Amino acid sequence: MSAKNAFYAQSGGVTAVINASACGVIETARRHKDQIANVYAGRNGIIGALTEDLIDTSQESDADIAALRYTPSGAFGSCRYKLKSLEANRREYERLIEVFKAHDIGYFFYNGGGDSADTCYKVSQLSEALGYPVQAIHVPKTVDNDLPITDNCPGFGSVAKYIATSALEASFDVRSMSKTSTKVFVLEVMGRHAGWIAAAGGLIEDHDIPVMILFPEIDFDQARFLATVKEKVERFDFCTVIVSEGAKYPDGRFLAEQGTRDAFGHAQLGGAAPVVANMVKDATGYKFHWAVADYLQRAARHLASKTDVEQAYAMGRAGVEFALAGHNAVMPTVKRLSSNPYAWEVGEAPLSEVANVEKFMPRDFITEDGFGITPICKEYLIPLIQGEDYPPFEHGLPKYVTLKNVAVECKLKPFTI
Amino acid sequence: MSAKNAFYAQSGGVTAVINASACGVIETARRHKDQIANVYAGRNGIIGALTEDLIDTSQESDADIAALRYTPSGAFGSCRYKLKSLEANRREYERLIEVFKAHDIGYFFYNGGGDSADTCYKVSQLSEALGYPVQAIHVPKTVDNDLPITDNCPGFGSVAKYIATSALEASFDVRSMSKTSTKVFVLEVMGRHAGWIAAAGGLIEDHDIPVMILFPEIDFDQARFLATVKEKVERFDFCTVIVSEGAKYPDGRFLAEQGTRDAFGHAQLGGAAPVVANMVKDATGYKFHWAVADYLQRAARHLASKTDVEQAYAMGRAGVEFALAGHNAVMPTVKRLSSNPYAWEVGEAPLSEVANVEKFMPRDFITEDGFGITPICKEYLIPLIQGEDYPPFEHGLPKYVTLKNVAVECKLKPFTI
Repeated sequence: MSAKNAFYAQSGGVTAVINASACGVIETARRHKDQIANVYAGRNGIIGALTEDLIDTSQESDADIAALRYTPSGAFGSCRYKLKSLEANRREYERLIEVFKAHDIGYFFYNGGGDSADTCYKVSQLSEALGYPVQAIHVPKTVDNDLPITDNCPGFGSVAKYIATSALEASFDVRSMSKTSTKVFVLEVMGRHAGWIAAAGGLIEDHDIPVMILFPEIDFDQARFLATVKEKVERFDFCTVIVSEGAKYPDGRFLAEQGTRDAFGHAQLGGAAPVVANMVKDATGYKFHWAVADYLQRAARHLASKTDVEQAYAMGRAGVEFALAGHNAVMPTVKRLSSNPYAWEVGEAPLSEVANVEKFMPRDFITEDGFGITPICKEYLIPLIQGEDYPPFEHGLPKYVTLKNVAVECKLKPFTI
Repeated sequence: MSAKNAFYAQSGGVTAVINASACGVIETARRHKDQIANVYAGRNGIIGALTEDLIDTSQESDADIAALRYTPSGAFGSCRYKLKSLEANRREYERLIEVFKAHDIGYFFYNGGGDSADTCYKVSQLSEALGYPVQAIHVPKTVDNDLPITDNCPGFGSVAKYIATSALEASFDVRSMSKTSTKVFVLEVMGRHAGWIAAAGGLIEDHDIPVMILFPEIDFDQARFLATVKEKVERFDFCTVIVSEGAKYPDGRFLAEQGTRDAFGHAQLGGAAPVVANMVKDATGYKFHWAVADYLQRAARHLASKTDVEQAYAMGRAGVEFALAGHNAVMPTVKRLSSNPYAWEVGEAPLSEVANVEKFMPRDFITEDGFGITPICKEYLIPLIQGEDYPPFEHGLPKYVTLKNVAVECKLKPFTI
């Protein structure tokens, strides 16, 4: 069998370690040139495949590819673009196969979350039907940690470490100021549907910080929340609140949607943090501060979890190894063998069981009152934030790589998406 | 001369490295037990002195005092409490002297910004007049970097490193998503009067990131701002905006004060970041994200500047050395000898010249268009963020110290502040 080319694309929101997976894919492929001639990356994700905008990764030096391991963001560009169902848009699937054919692509590595697992699965099912078999492998990535089967998702451990560290540091700050100043600190974190990231904030409880968490999985009970804040402040003189962007009222409205209007009557897009902070102020009069970490949390490669980086790389490498072993329509997974001491190995899941399944926080990971995490949740989380893996610094700032991203020559007619 | 005790207090907003100054004070005092018998710290800053709530630092182990060097926040508690003028409140100054007398305190080390320099100066002037001479030394601290004479203030370098790193990482994130998603990222940073922290965000320009800064020193020109954002997005497909919390309109109104009302008609305390982000969205339709770093930035000891930590420690040590050499009413300073290679030494400033002087960004540190920083500003900033000085980690989180903070027995009647 002559060597085929591979296609690799990054999908959806990027993370601190998605490039470590890219590094794992490309470095492993480079060690198997007899089977994988070259890796073409999609510029801006799957859009690059559809528009035949492919990046020739062979133009990048080994050193630059190695630097992907410690560079956050998506080095080739990512996109939020979900392929519709085959019935609704057969044209796009056919185009993908056309591009794969034109560039002799026999392997499709798709690095993303739930939506891209679904796309990847469809590609695996379709390609043979369309007369051009491609092995489709999904490489898991999502800060939301909501993919099924895998114990955890690369990207999550680093956000968890960042949020727990930041919440700890800010809480120390508030604790030292609470006598005359701030008593309540509210930190908003990502996670529209699942509260995994918010849960990580709960780890600071073991550092003597009074902390409350507002999960998307638990309906927000304003009266009980305010009473508990008061109780904590009366006891500790301060309190930290971690609020998920997806926290919502029993009627389904997000906390962040307050129907707020600015001076000109425009609807104001608020965050959940200022809403919660002002709510506390109105009810108790406590001084507050709030922060919205937003992209800072998922881009914070400077504070990545070493475990997360290793797993992200391992998922990329395993994806290529599965492909070389002839597997199709699968996703490498993290399989936990033990929590303490932590041990894991690479597992494998069929994409048919991954696509369109979302994993929420189990109820027994959340304390009965709904505002904290339980010991089994801590046992789950702690290994994932273990270890530091600092990037190199130059002139005081991290020295991240920007690739050359040279385009492969087009062979087809333009395609409009 | 028999050994006297020293009083040390932390004042105002805490930083990632104010405890490194405390460490410098206490470790240096411990090496001179013949002259300084013990260091008493004020619990919650100067309030601890007024209420005779003193902490006996001799109860802390050498290891715990050494751990202050890498622990953010104020280990003894800080406060926002400005002593009024002598005329308005002679009672409080007299009380301070009474407490100092009762506890045989001959040295007053006050670790803070501009307000505390003023208090420290008054104490130095007063103590002799009240018949109990105390040597008063101010140890500089402020993330705002607005103290005069000293080249920079301990606390600032670490915030600057954090903001530049975070802005760089988030900008990489936005750059990889801009094709289909976020094009404008807005990061709000501290600095109500002076734009030093915002300026640090400008350092990412040298990493090929299109960045704009909104300084408190430059009146906000909305039309020109929006036009420049558009220009940058058209050219680079994305743009990062660093907005100082103190950015304001020509009429003096803060951008953050939008007269916003929530659904119940309550005034909504917004941040400047969501205001700017929504303004961009309304004018251009670009997708945006915004973050408010708030306490995260000044507490981020995990990413402290090594230069900043060393200087914070050196200021504490020099304060004690000045006192032991018989100086009074002075502040140690950082004196820059050269920028490239960076060299500095400890200087000394009379408090009469420090008190009530605020140092703003020089106009020639800001580009002519008002949205960027100039090469001389970069030359000033870069040395201050040099070097990393990571805290130890345990179970995935920084291992910061919480002191025992044992109270000294009271000798006086209670005092109401």
